[in-house]
Amino acid sequence: MKSVIKRSFSDFFFEYETPRQVLVKNKRVAVVCRIIQLGVLSYIIGWVFMYEKGYQTVDTAISSVFTKMKGVSYTNISGKERIWDVADYVFPEQGDSSFVVMTNYISTEGQKQGKCPELPDGKNNCTSDTACDEGKYKRQMTGKCNTNTSTCEIYSWCPVEDDREIPNPPILRTAENYTLFIKNSITFRQFNVVRSNLVESVNQSYISKCLYHSQTDPLCPIFRLGDIVEHSGFNFSEVARVGGAIGVLIDWDCNLDLNIRHCKPKYEFYGLYGTGKNDQEEKPSLGYNFRYAKYYVEDKLEKRTLMKVFGVRIDIIVHGRAGKFDIIPTLTAIGSGVGIFGVATVVCDLLLLYLLPKRDFYKSMKFKNTEDQEENPTLPPSQKERELPKE
Amino acid sequence: MKSVIKRSFSDFFFEYETPRQVLVKNKRVAVVCRIIQLGVLSYIIGWVFMYEKGYQTVDTAISSVFTKMKGVSYTNISGKERIWDVADYVFPEQGDSSFVVMTNYISTEGQKQGKCPELPDGKNNCTSDTACDEGKYKRQMTGKCNTNTSTCEIYSWCPVEDDREIPNPPILRTAENYTLFIKNSITFRQFNVVRSNLVESVNQSYISKCLYHSQTDPLCPIFRLGDIVEHSGFNFSEVARVGGAIGVLIDWDCNLDLNIRHCKPKYEFYGLYGTGKNDQEEKPSLGYNFRYAKYYVEDKLEKRTLMKVFGVRIDIIVHGRAGKFDIIPTLTAIGSGVGIFGVATVVCDLLLLYLLPKRDFYKSMKFKNTEDQEENPTLPPSQKERELPKE
Amino acid sequence: MKSVIKRSFSDFFFEYETPRQVLVKNKRVAVVCRIIQLGVLSYIIGWVFMYEKGYQTVDTAISSVFTKMKGVSYTNISGKERIWDVADYVFPEQGDSSFVVMTNYISTEGQKQGKCPELPDGKNNCTSDTACDEGKYKRQMTGKCNTNTSTCEIYSWCPVEDDREIPNPPILRTAENYTLFIKNSITFRQFNVVRSNLVESVNQSYISKCLYHSQTDPLCPIFRLGDIVEHSGFNFSEVARVGGAIGVLIDWDCNLDLNIRHCKPKYEFYGLYGTGKNDQEEKPSLGYNFRYAKYYVEDKLEKRTLMKVFGVRIDIIVHGRAGKFDIIPTLTAIGSGVGIFGVATVVCDLLLLYLLPKRDFYKSMKFKNTEDQEENPTLPPSQKERELPKE
Repeated sequence: MKSVIKRSFSDFFFEYETPRQVLVKNKRVAVVCRIIQLGVLSYIIGWVFMYEKGYQTVDTAISSVFTKMKGVSYTNISGKERIWDVADYVFPEQGDSSFVVMTNYISTEGQKQGKCPELPDGKNNCTSDTACDEGKYKRQMTGKCNTNTSTCEIYSWCPVEDDREIPNPPILRTAENYTLFIKNSITFRQFNVVRSNLVESVNQSYISKCLYHSQTDPLCPIFRLGDIVEHSGFNFSEVARVGGAIGVLIDWDCNLDLNIRHCKPKYEFYGLYGTGKNDQEEKPSLGYNFRYAKYYVEDKLEKRTLMKVFGVRIDIIVHGRAGKFDIIPTLTAIGSGVGIFGVATVVCDLLLLYLLPKRDFYKSMKFKNTEDQEENPTLPPSQKERELPKE
Repeated sequence: MKSVIKRSFSDFFFEYETPRQVLVKNKRVAVVCRIIQLGVLSYIIGWVFMYEKGYQTVDTAISSVFTKMKGVSYTNISGKERIWDVADYVFPEQGDSSFVVMTNYISTEGQKQGKCPELPDGKNNCTSDTACDEGKYKRQMTGKCNTNTSTCEIYSWCPVEDDREIPNPPILRTAENYTLFIKNSITFRQFNVVRSNLVESVNQSYISKCLYHSQTDPLCPIFRLGDIVEHSGFNFSEVARVGGAIGVLIDWDCNLDLNIRHCKPKYEFYGLYGTGKNDQEEKPSLGYNFRYAKYYVEDKLEKRTLMKVFGVRIDIIVHGRAGKFDIIPTLTAIGSGVGIFGVATVVCDLLLLYLLPKRDFYKSMKFKNTEDQEENPTLPPSQKERELPKE
Repeated sequence: MKSVIKRSFSDFFFEYETPRQVLVKNKRVAVVCRIIQLGVLSYIIGWVFMYEKGYQTVDTAISSVFTKMKGVSYTNISGKERIWDVADYVFPEQGDSSFVVMTNYISTEGQKQGKCPELPDGKNNCTSDTACDEGKYKRQMTGKCNTNTSTCEIYSWCPVEDDREIPNPPILRTAENYTLFIKNSITFRQFNVVRSNLVESVNQSYISKCLYHSQTDPLCPIFRLGDIVEHSGFNFSEVARVGGAIGVLIDWDCNLDLNIRHCKPKYEFYGLYGTGKNDQEEKPSLGYNFRYAKYYVEDKLEKRTLMKVFGVRIDIIVHGRAGKFDIIPTLTAIGSGVGIFGVATVVCDLLLLYLLPKRDFYKSMKFKNTEDQEENPTLPPSQKERELPKE
C-alpha cells in the first residue's frame, strides 16, 4: 500500500501532461484564428495593460483641505462708508473646505423680540382681526390685524425682515477680486504616500506672486473669485446678486510607478446648482442664501442684526486616485487574458468544425471517438497503438 | 538563416493548433459534466452578468450638499415671550451637510470674567480654604472656600453655568414641525454625469407644496424634522430633550445603461448614536450637546451669554454608485468564466479517470504515454503513425 | 430534419469531450513544470486567498464623526486675568469632524469703521499724499499720507490690526492639557453593519477615567491635545505659537467573517502641513491661522473685536474598509487562477518543445499534422486509425 502511494506520488512529480494538439495546416482558418488571437493579445496588452493600467493596484486618497480668502471691499450706501474684510464676509471663518463668500445681503438692524405686523407681501393680507385668529404653525399670531399694513400682527423679532427686493447690483460686487488660497494634503494609505498641492515647483516665492490660470499657471493654488465663477460657467454679477454654489474639484490622478513629482493636482470648476445655462426646467431651485444674526445687548435688551446673505458657496471636492504596479492585478489580468484566449480558440474551432467544407475531416482529426473501442474493451486501444510502431 | 525565420513566421501564421479531444460516449459522465457546465454558464450569465452587472464598470459619486431649515418656534418662559427663527436655532448657519437644530438649551446670561464659587454639584465640596489650594488642571482655583455654597472659589466666567437639570419638556418642543430642504448634487467623474436630487418630476410647483413621505412622496426633498427623527427609530421628545445624532443617507444606485431619468435618490434615516432602542449597554455615550457663547460689551465690559445647546444633529451622507457597460469588466468576467469552465472540465475528468469502472480504458484514451517510445527515439513515432495510413 | 436536431441535442448531452493529453515521462521537464504549477497554486492560495483575502467582497464605510473638547485655560496678561473655556477656544462650536483649537491669538479690540493709517510694516511707506493716490485694489485709500506713521490713510476697521509679532510663548500654552473626545459611527451599507468607536470594551466607566495611549489604551476615545500633537511629529509649543494642521485618522479594517467584536478602530496621527520635520523645502506654507470678529454695538455704533487666531486644526478622517466572503470574487479569483495555470502549461510547453534535446520527439507526440492527410482526404484518417487496431 505504501509503495502504491509512493508510486502515485512519484508519478505525479515525474510525469507531466500536456494537451495533444492538431496542427491544422489550413491557411484560411489559421489566418482568421491568428488574427483573432492577435486581437485578443493586443487588446490585453494595449488596452488592459497600457491604457487602463490593469497591472496596477489602485488606491483612493483621503484628504484634508484648508482655505483662506483675501481681499477687502468698500461700500458706500447712501453716504455711509463701510469696509468689508475677511472676518466680515466669509462663513465659516476657520477655513473649511466648504464655505460661503458673501456678495450681497439684506440687513435688518436692531431687531428685538416683540409684536409687529407681517410683511405686506400680498400673501398675508387681512381686513379684520378674525382673519388672524387661526393658528398657522409657521408664525405665532397675536390675533390682531394691523390696519396700516393690512397684515396680521405676529410675535417675532421686530421689525420683520423685508426681503422682497434683492439689491441690484450686488452690494459687494468687488468680491470678484478676492483671492482664494487652497491648501490640500492627500494621503494614499496603501502606498504610504503623502502629497500636498504645494508641489515641488510651487515654492514660497512663486506663491507670493502667482495667480491661477488654466494655461499659464495651472498649479498656482491662489484663485481669483471672479475667475472661479467664470470658469464654472456662471456669470459673476448674476451669481453675486442671488447667490450660487460652485464646486472646485482638485483631481489627483497619480501613476506612482513614475517619479512622485509627476503626481500633480488638476483644478476644475463647475456650477453645482443655481443660475447655470439653460437649466431653467431641470433645476428649479436657484440661488443660494442663508440667514444669520449678530446678537448684542443694548440698554439691557437683547437685540440682533439679521443678515440675509447671498453669496458664492464654494465646495472644494478632492478626488484622488493613485495606481502602482502590483502582482495581484497583473496576474488577474493575465489569467483573464488566457481565459479570453480560450474564447478565441473556441471561435476558431467553431469555424473549423462547422463552416469549412472539409469539416468532417477536421472533426475526425480533432476528436477520437470512444464508441468503437467500447466493443472490445479488454485491451486498451492506446496500447495497441503504441505497439504498432514496433511491428 | 533568413529563410528559417521566414518559414517559422509563415508556419506560425498558416498553421493553427487546436487541442485533440476524446469524445467520451458515456451517458453518466456526459450528463454530470453538462450539468456542471450548465451550472457554471448559468452562474456566469445569471449571477455575474444579470444580477451583479459584472459587465459594468462602476464609479462612486463625488457630491455636494446644501441644506435649509424653515420654521419658527414660540416660547413663553415665566411670562417672557420669545420667538426663535432659523438664525437662532441652526448651527452652523450657512447650510452645511452637517448641522445642529437646537431643541433645548440651558442659557447662562450675563457672564463676565471674575471669581465665583463652583457649582455645588456634590463633587467640589470644601470646608476650609486648604481644600481649594491644590492646583487641579481643570479649574483655576483662587484658594478660597466659599462658605455659602461650600464650594471652592474659582476664576471663571461668572456666574458659572448650572446644568444639573435639563429642561423637561424640551423648550423648543415645536421643532418637530420645522422643515428641512436638502439640495444634493452628485457627479460621476468617469461617466461625465452630473445629477441633482431635484430630478425631472420634482419641479418648482411640486417643491412649493410637497413634504417627504416614504410611500407617497419619496422624491420630495423637503422633510419634517419630526418625521426624520421618527424614521430613524428615535422618540422625538426624548431626542429633543437630551439631543441625538441622526444620519440622513442619500443613496444613489444608478444604472447608466438605462435612461438617466431612472437615476433617482433614495432617502434613509438612522440614528447614529444616542438614545436609540435597547443599546444601553453597547453605546454608553448618549445625547448630544455643545456650548457656545454670544459675546457682547456692556458698560465697557466684555460679557457673554453661554448656551448649552441640546439638539438634533443631522449628518447628511451621500452614497453614490453608478454602473455603465464597459468592455474591460465584461471581458474580465468572460475570461474568468472560461477559467471556471476549465474547473468544470477538471471535475469531470476526475470523475472519468478515477471513479468510473472503465477508468483505465478512458485513461488510455485520454493519455498517450511517451515512455515506450523513448526506447527507440531515433524515429519519431508520429511520423511512423503518419506513414501508416499510406501502407 | 427534426431527428437531426434531436440527434445533435442528444449528442451534446450524452457525449463529453475531454482534451487528449501526452503524458511526458521526462523527469527534468516534469519537475520544473510541477514546481511552476505548485508556485502558481501556492500563490493563488497563499497570497490571493489568505493574505489579500481574494475570496471577500469589499465595502468602504460611510461615517459620521462628533467631537467634544474639554479643558480650561487661565491667562494673566499684564495683570488682566482671564479664563478660556470651550465656548471661547473651539471653532466651530458644534463638534464637527474638522475644527480648530485656539492656542494663540492677536486681538484687536474696539475696532470701528473709519479712516486710519496703514500699519507701518515697511511696505506701505509714503512721504506725500501723491503716493497714496493710486487705486490699489486691496485697500481703499483716502488719498492722504499720515505724517506720524509715514503710511497712507485707508478706509478700514480702525485701529488696524498689528500682527507683526506673534506672541511668544503662545498665550494658551496650557491647551496642551485639553482633552478631545471623539465619537465615530461607521456603516457598511453592503453588509448592513453599523459600528461605533465605543466598542464592547469601552463602556461608560472606562470612558470616565481613560486617556488614549497607543500602547496601554489604544481604544480609549479620549485624547490629550498635547499627545495628539506629539504623535503627529510636531513640537507642541511651536505648533501652539504659529498654528498647524493635524490629521487624526480613524482606521477601520474589518474582517466580517470573524466576530464583529474584532472590528475595532485604530487611531493614527500625522501632520498635514505646517511645521513638520525637515520639510522646509517641500512645504513652503507653514502655520495655520484665521481671523474672526466678535461684533457688538456700543453707543449706537457697531464695533468688533478682531481676533487673529493661531491654533491646532484637527481634521478627523475616517477610513473604513470591510471584507466578507462572497461567491463572486471567490469564483473570479479561482477563474483567474485556472487561467494562470494555463500560463504555467504554456511555459512548460515552451521548455519541452524548444529547449530539450528530444524536442522533435515531443513535438511529434504533442502535435498531429493535418498536411499529409490532405493528400488523400477522401477517407478521414482517424477512421483508418480506428480500424487499424482491428487488424
